[in-house]
Amino acid sequence: MVGSCHSCDNCMNNLENYCPKMIFTYGTKYYDGAVTHGGYSNIMVVNEHFAVSIPENLPLDATAPLLCAGITVYSPLRFYGLDKPGLRVGVVGLGGLGHLAVKFAKAMGTNVTVISTSPSKQKEALENLGADSFLVSRDQDQLQAAIGTLYGIIDTVSAQHPLLPLLGLLKSHGKLVILGIPGKPFELQVFPLIQGRKLLGGSMIGGMKETQEMIDFAAEHNIKTDIEVIAMDYVNTAMDRLLKGDVKYRFVIDIGNTLRPSS
Amino acid sequence: MVGSCHSCDNCMNNLENYCPKMIFTYGTKYYDGAVTHGGYSNIMVVNEHFAVSIPENLPLDATAPLLCAGITVYSPLRFYGLDKPGLRVGVVGLGGLGHLAVKFAKAMGTNVTVISTSPSKQKEALENLGADSFLVSRDQDQLQAAIGTLYGIIDTVSAQHPLLPLLGLLKSHGKLVILGIPGKPFELQVFPLIQGRKLLGGSMIGGMKETQEMIDFAAEHNIKTDIEVIAMDYVNTAMDRLLKGDVKYRFVIDIGNTLRPSS
Repeated sequence: MVGSCHSCDNCMNNLENYCPKMIFTYGTKYYDGAVTHGGYSNIMVVNEHFAVSIPENLPLDATAPLLCAGITVYSPLRFYGLDKPGLRVGVVGLGGLGHLAVKFAKAMGTNVTVISTSPSKQKEALENLGADSFLVSRDQDQLQAAIGTLYGIIDTVSAQHPLLPLLGLLKSHGKLVILGIPGKPFELQVFPLIQGRKLLGGSMIGGMKETQEMIDFAAEHNIKTDIEVIAMDYVNTAMDRLLKGDVKYRFVIDIGNTLRPSS
Repeated sequence: MVGSCHSCDNCMNNLENYCPKMIFTYGTKYYDGAVTHGGYSNIMVVNEHFAVSIPENLPLDATAPLLCAGITVYSPLRFYGLDKPGLRVGVVGLGGLGHLAVKFAKAMGTNVTVISTSPSKQKEALENLGADSFLVSRDQDQLQAAIGTLYGIIDTVSAQHPLLPLLGLLKSHGKLVILGIPGKPFELQVFPLIQGRKLLGGSMIGGMKETQEMIDFAAEHNIKTDIEVIAMDYVNTAMDRLLKGDVKYRFVIDIGNTLRPSS
C-alpha cells in the first residue's frame, strides 16, 4: 500500500492496511488522480510513511515479494498467536504465500505441518522448506490420524476447497485463518465452531510498523522468497505459467534489467 | 452437563464443557449406563463438581434456564471480550438466549443493539429488556446506516439466515459469535474476514467455574430468565407453542408441582 487517511482508528493503531481509504500499490487511484502501477512501474514516488527500509543482508529481488506475500502470512501468525515455540501450526497450500508461511512459522519456532492436495510436494516441504510434517488433504487416513492436533492453520488456498476437514484438524479453541478469496462463498458447518469453540478469521497484508518488523525479522532469520527473476518481455509467458502453477514460488520482474538471479 | 473426564487439557483449564467425554444433563449415557433425563427428572444425583450453588436471592424457577441459556450467552461475552463498558454489541434474535444476552450484556455495561427480523419486538427490546437500540434486519436503510458500528455480535438464531449483513455491521477486527446450529451449512463470503480482519467464532455453554461465576453475577445484578412455569401435563401443548415461538422466553416445568409462578 502507498497511502491511507492517517486519522481513522486503524491508522492511529498502525493498521493502515485496514483503513477504509487505503491506497493499494497497484490499481488504485493515488491522491493526484493517477492510477498506481505497483511493481510494473520503473520509478515510484511514495510518502516516506509507506517506504520500508531493507537491511543490507537481504537481496532486493528475493525480498520484494515479502512486501506482499511475506507480510500477508507474518501478520496473522502474530495476531492469532500462532507464533509460540513448539505450537503445532498447519499451512494449507504450498505456493507463494504457503512457502513463506512455512519459513516464517519455522523461524518463530513452531512445529509446522504442510497440508496439500499434492503428495508430490512432500519432499519440497520437508527437505527444502524445513516443515516438520506433511499431510495429504485427500488422504482420509492421514486426515483421521491428525484430527484435533493443530493449534492453528494458515490457509493460503484461493481455489474452492472444503473447510470442514481443516476445522477437524484443529484442537478446541484452535484458529483457522483464511487468506485466499475463492470465487464462490465457502460452505460453513458451524458445529466445530460451537462444539470446539474454534475460530475462523482472516487477515490482509499488515500495517507499516509490522511490515518493517517482518522485514527485520526476515533479515535476522535469513528468510527469502524463492523466486524466478524474469525480464519485462517475459511477462506474458510468466502469466501463462502462473495460471498453470508453474513457478517456484514468485516471479520477480527485473524492470530495469539490472538484477542478476539471486543465489 | 453432569460429567467429564477430569484429565484432558480442557478439564484441566476449567473448560469441562469442551471435554471430549463430557456428559450432557440430557440424553447422554451416564457412567452407570443410564441415560440422563435432565430437567424431566424428578430427582437427580450428580458429582458435586457439577452442582452449582444458587444464591438466596435468586428464585429457583427463573434461575433454572440460566444454567443453559444464561451460561451459553455469558461465556462468549466474556471470552470474546464483548464485556467492556461502553462497547457496542449486537444481539441477533430475541428468544430464550437473546433476551438473556441483552440482560447480561447490559449488566456488563455494554451498549446493546438488538437485531431482529420482527419490528414487533422493538418495544419489548427497548422498554422491557433495556436494550439501547433496535435494528430490523430486513430493513436495508437501517442496515446501511449501522454498517461498521458494532464491536461484536452474539447471534442466537438457529434458523437459516445470511451472515454477510451481520459481518457488515461489524467494525474492523469485530467478532461474530454464532450460538445456533441451522440444519444446513451457512454460506460464508470471506472477504469481510480478510478485508476487515473480522472473526467468526462459536461457543457452547461454559465450564463449571464460569457457570458459578455467571450465577453469582446474575444474583448481583438481579438477572432472571423471563419464564412461564407449567405443570408436567402441559408439556405437549408447550412443545406445540415452542414450535410457533409462542413463549416468553422459556417454559419451566414444575416437575413436583411445588413452585408458584415467579413474580
